[in-house]
Amino acid sequence: MQATLTIDLSAICDNWRALDAMSSGETAAVIKADAYGLGAATVGPALAAAGVKTFFVAQANEAVILRNALGAGPRIFNFSGLMQGDDTALTDHNIIPVLNSATQVERFAKNLTGKPCGVQLDTGMNRLGMETAEAASVAMTLHALKPELVMSHLACADEPAHLMNNTQFAAFSAMTAMMPATQKSLSATGGILLGQAFHFDLTRPGIGLYGGLPFKDAKPVVQLDLPIIQVRDVLPGEIVGYGASWKAARPSKIATISSGYADGILRSAKGFSLYAGDTACPVVGRVSMDLLTVDVTDLTEIPTSLSLLNTVQTVDVLARCAGTIGYEILTSLGGRYKRDYVGEN
Amino acid sequence: MQATLTIDLSAICDNWRALDAMSSGETAAVIKADAYGLGAATVGPALAAAGVKTFFVAQANEAVILRNALGAGPRIFNFSGLMQGDDTALTDHNIIPVLNSATQVERFAKNLTGKPCGVQLDTGMNRLGMETAEAASVAMTLHALKPELVMSHLACADEPAHLMNNTQFAAFSAMTAMMPATQKSLSATGGILLGQAFHFDLTRPGIGLYGGLPFKDAKPVVQLDLPIIQVRDVLPGEIVGYGASWKAARPSKIATISSGYADGILRSAKGFSLYAGDTACPVVGRVSMDLLTVDVTDLTEIPTSLSLLNTVQTVDVLARCAGTIGYEILTSLGGRYKRDYVGEN
Repeated sequence: MQATLTIDLSAICDNWRALDAMSSGETAAVIKADAYGLGAATVGPALAAAGVKTFFVAQANEAVILRNALGAGPRIFNFSGLMQGDDTALTDHNIIPVLNSATQVERFAKNLTGKPCGVQLDTGMNRLGMETAEAASVAMTLHALKPELVMSHLACADEPAHLMNNTQFAAFSAMTAMMPATQKSLSATGGILLGQAFHFDLTRPGIGLYGGLPFKDAKPVVQLDLPIIQVRDVLPGEIVGYGASWKAARPSKIATISSGYADGILRSAKGFSLYAGDTACPVVGRVSMDLLTVDVTDLTEIPTSLSLLNTVQTVDVLARCAGTIGYEILTSLGGRYKRDYVGEN
Repeated sequence: MQATLTIDLSAICDNWRALDAMSSGETAAVIKADAYGLGAATVGPALAAAGVKTFFVAQANEAVILRNALGAGPRIFNFSGLMQGDDTALTDHNIIPVLNSATQVERFAKNLTGKPCGVQLDTGMNRLGMETAEAASVAMTLHALKPELVMSHLACADEPAHLMNNTQFAAFSAMTAMMPATQKSLSATGGILLGQAFHFDLTRPGIGLYGGLPFKDAKPVVQLDLPIIQVRDVLPGEIVGYGASWKAARPSKIATISSGYADGILRSAKGFSLYAGDTACPVVGRVSMDLLTVDVTDLTEIPTSLSLLNTVQTVDVLARCAGTIGYEILTSLGGRYKRDYVGEN
């Protein structure tokens, strides 16, 4: 019996439709990191069928996998641009690099002139993209290349009141005023929620598609059910798990579950539960590599599995227990789970 | 250009040989969780060639993958035993379940009598295995099944002075005195280091094979090299990354690296570095999904990649920075890394 991750493709597509309805221009889809852990080769075609015409990934090798899944047609942009050695993979699979530096622009102009490209500008996050001076140093080349897309990325879009948002908006507006790009793009999910001024010609939602904050109205996308290996009675004073870190305060029933931190259940998670229907059963003791121990004393009937992710304990709720964000919960989802896709595909 | 995880199979085999030389009986190998993230389908055959005759995994589906990689011959035990629905997968691939509960013993006796089995006893960890009363309830069945192996697991073996070690040793000795099993086994890596009294007939090292604590003398097994996408100059007062959480105190050079928490670089990690040879370059700002930002101001020459894991910043050093243990660093190693195997295979 195997742990099962159920992925609702209809919810993903509905989340895209909802974000698309809010966006003033084209709405793309970000499916980097294997569609945030949910499987780009399945999620990509489902979104394409729902109407997505433009996809984004983070690395050339991801782009190749996605192109094979999508077939010809949709645009695929690669955020890391054109790194050394990427030329053939990108051109053979019709992937569009988002050029991040003067070095990448010059490499593209030398090896791939005539192919489509995008450009990333840095508007203050200092992570990816060219600042004004660097972009100016290759201005003539950029004009000749006629990028399909010029984009930047917001550092603090999940904090609507953060001063960085307006600073980056102003910088992007100024820097792109003279750019020859066909489409301008500044916003991912958080930026869409900041309002239409931030949308420009194309938005790039990622986390919102997968049911995560900051898109509060997103439909939940994942359900994760973990099978019980065995159940034991534990007396008051007995310990459970590594380091003897939990001690029973009452006569307890402890279920041992087949899943652990090797499956992406972060070892830092504290105070979370597994669910039997609506009933929360607290995880006790340390998360092991392949195992969890859960207090099922209060259940009248022991099911064959308990759920870790559901409509109550969402990726964001579990993330708070682990001191992280829903994004990391999703991208950590492990390779040993059976993946069941439901809904449109 | 792709991040590359280099896995030294000779180091893994040498670590097994070193632990085998300390062990008084047979020395098995635990390669659950895809050989702690390093690839069971490659690590397994290398260890078999080095002399390992018995392997352990955590789940039936892992066991099937390993059998296909090893071919017939070596024994493969499955720690989660015989869960509902596992029968066919186990018998078709000659996998030996380690029976953990009376329910599993009865299921085995009903469906698989005549096949080999193992038994796990609980000696105080209250995680997997039968306690005395539960084992007694199926004593006659167990005698008839003649298990090849009876085992238990230590909860605190990495703390040699912990009282649990002697308590579990005494419980295991008493519980197995009348057991008909061919081999008795109590110790993983930590137990091997506790001394020969803990070894019984078979030891089950896991983490020690992969270069992790508590086996201090282990050879390092992994090197992880992450490519640089671009380098930028940042002025004093400029911020870097999400949440604008890092601010430059001096004129700085910041390299943006193609790898992030989607690759298993835990978002909780603080105060770690990437290395250019022996020179540590501090990671600054938040770990992003696909990107890291690194202060390379003090490098005289910028290489094309920097290393995250090496002989200085080992899995255990990085684990301390992330508030976890080396095991989780290993099992989190991401699917986007190119895996290069070096050494014996």
